[in-house]
Amino acid sequence: MTPATRHCPLPSPFAMRRGGHLEGATVAYETWGALAPARDNAVLVLTGMSPSAHAAAHPDDPTPGWWDDIIGPGKAIDTRRWFVVCVNSLGSCMGSTGPASVNPATGQPWRLDFPALSLEDVALAAHEVVRSLGIERLHCLVGPSMGGMSALAYALNLPAAARHLLLVSTAPHSLPFSIAIRSLQRELIRSDPAWNGGHYDAEAFPVTGMLLARKLGMTTYRSAREWRQRFGRSKVPEDARDGAPFGPEFAVESYLAYQAERFVTRFDPNCYLYLSRAMDWFDVADYGGSVARGLARIRARGALVIGVETDLLFPLEQQEEIAEGLRDGGVPTQFAALPSIQGHDAFLVDTPRFGKTIGDFMAAI
Amino acid sequence: MTPATRHCPLPSPFAMRRGGHLEGATVAYETWGALAPARDNAVLVLTGMSPSAHAAAHPDDPTPGWWDDIIGPGKAIDTRRWFVVCVNSLGSCMGSTGPASVNPATGQPWRLDFPALSLEDVALAAHEVVRSLGIERLHCLVGPSMGGMSALAYALNLPAAARHLLLVSTAPHSLPFSIAIRSLQRELIRSDPAWNGGHYDAEAFPVTGMLLARKLGMTTYRSAREWRQRFGRSKVPEDARDGAPFGPEFAVESYLAYQAERFVTRFDPNCYLYLSRAMDWFDVADYGGSVARGLARIRARGALVIGVETDLLFPLEQQEEIAEGLRDGGVPTQFAALPSIQGHDAFLVDTPRFGKTIGDFMAAI
Repeated sequence: MTPATRHCPLPSPFAMRRGGHLEGATVAYETWGALAPARDNAVLVLTGMSPSAHAAAHPDDPTPGWWDDIIGPGKAIDTRRWFVVCVNSLGSCMGSTGPASVNPATGQPWRLDFPALSLEDVALAAHEVVRSLGIERLHCLVGPSMGGMSALAYALNLPAAARHLLLVSTAPHSLPFSIAIRSLQRELIRSDPAWNGGHYDAEAFPVTGMLLARKLGMTTYRSAREWRQRFGRSKVPEDARDGAPFGPEFAVESYLAYQAERFVTRFDPNCYLYLSRAMDWFDVADYGGSVARGLARIRARGALVIGVETDLLFPLEQQEEIAEGLRDGGVPTQFAALPSIQGHDAFLVDTPRFGKTIGDFMAAI
Repeated sequence: MTPATRHCPLPSPFAMRRGGHLEGATVAYETWGALAPARDNAVLVLTGMSPSAHAAAHPDDPTPGWWDDIIGPGKAIDTRRWFVVCVNSLGSCMGSTGPASVNPATGQPWRLDFPALSLEDVALAAHEVVRSLGIERLHCLVGPSMGGMSALAYALNLPAAARHLLLVSTAPHSLPFSIAIRSLQRELIRSDPAWNGGHYDAEAFPVTGMLLARKLGMTTYRSAREWRQRFGRSKVPEDARDGAPFGPEFAVESYLAYQAERFVTRFDPNCYLYLSRAMDWFDVADYGGSVARGLARIRARGALVIGVETDLLFPLEQQEEIAEGLRDGGVPTQFAALPSIQGHDAFLVDTPRFGKTIGDFMAAI
């Protein structure tokens, strides 16, 4: 949370889709730009699994946001034209209520007593922010990665809520390879004795499990091709090695260690488990019996679906499936298959390609 | 080890390439078929990381071997014609000397005092078997996966040792994606408190680390496409779930658990670490400064290089690189890119395609 973070109380109780409810829950959000008097220029951005609501630099918090290359004045999502809202997911730990929050009924952190979380809950909680801002209809609903799944949940549950959809490197549901990776990440956290059934604290924190889960994540967020160009078989200098038996020798190992260290203290392990499982559970086919029938229920004036050829975790065929399904349901849909080499994370780093593709779409709607 | 296993003593001391030496070491092997009086029909098979020397059913051990679909009477590697030898890698735990063996100098298991292992050591130890059988020149040297890297090490160190090469789903060196996966597998084992710096026993065995490492392996041995067809989003029946928080729900999770359980007690964790690192270390570029120059040193009458489009761990471009390098060095080389959907493991399971491709090559040499 930053000085730019605002909080939106959810209706209390807030009923969760898979049972249980939350009392006094809130979600954190940030906004950029100004809402037009007609309230018709709102863009809602739903996030991937781990980011906060700080998607871009803000007058009250000038540090770069996670999508700083895309959102801002004169950028692809131009905050001089759009009133942009980004919501930290319900169940996360960046200001929104989640398993790391205090359960008001007990005065203790929820931990694993937090009710089962679905991306429908994430979507409907984000919608409360939209409603609280007096926005009746979004001009565009945007979601990369998990955020795209949450955006689909949003559009399926609130059919008239958005005029346009921008779905980036996402999927109508998780396929077994991605489920396997996420299941293993969850198991890495659960297998750390310090996780202790969810009862850890800052002194006894499942550091190892989180480091390992993040390293595994990194192997699927980028691409083999990018790493080949970037690291090849470069080695860590002998004098910079930690000396542990079988410790890192190759540059790619040290890169993974660095990325994991950066992440581990920033994210709550129980929140990670809840959000990760929500991604595996989400299924457009829950709406009508098949992905095609689910997508055909979505109404919008237009959509852009973007995917990347090297994405292992959300493979390109899944974005194609979304685009075809929206089209078959009558939504005029553009499909952009980008040749980025950065894999799933390309939307965060391949600014030339994503900026152009998103900017052209946003300029035309 | 089985009744069909034989043992070949290595010269003592056996000097290891990266330093250190072994006293009284042996490697385990099996043979099928009969060596021709001219001793010119020998085929040596080097194995992937975890298999034993039991590549095929044997009169003394009729249980199926790990390459039973390919090796046998009338099969692609026809044991009525060829005298087939398969060697358990030095450093492994299936009868050959390795970190789990007793160090004769101390009477205790070697554990991490075992000298650093390279695939050159694996290759030169296998060559001692060939020599002991009175074979001056192999008719064909065969290696799938790590076995292909060991075969390259063999051919580079013993240039006249084989008339033909058959390299399957292998690489001239490991690229950073594969290094990252293996490094993480090793870290999963090392992070298990029961690993205890290599000092575990049957009562305190790093079961969790081995299970996790195998599960991670499985995500890279198969392909997303195969799993999509095979499991889709099928669920484990509610009453068959273990009830642990965040425990398996999807069929793919239960498949991974089953595969890992089968493996965990069959393989020694320290041996796993040594062999895994040997794969990351091996580099054809060590011979002449580049992969191309290394491959150009290899002499043979002919070669077949096989790869699979869906292989994540040993991607097709690496088999293509081997084929081109051998050709540029003057070895007539066929390159077969197979459309199998089973990923790296296809050589073990896609018998129709591999049987035909290997059989045609073996029939013509």
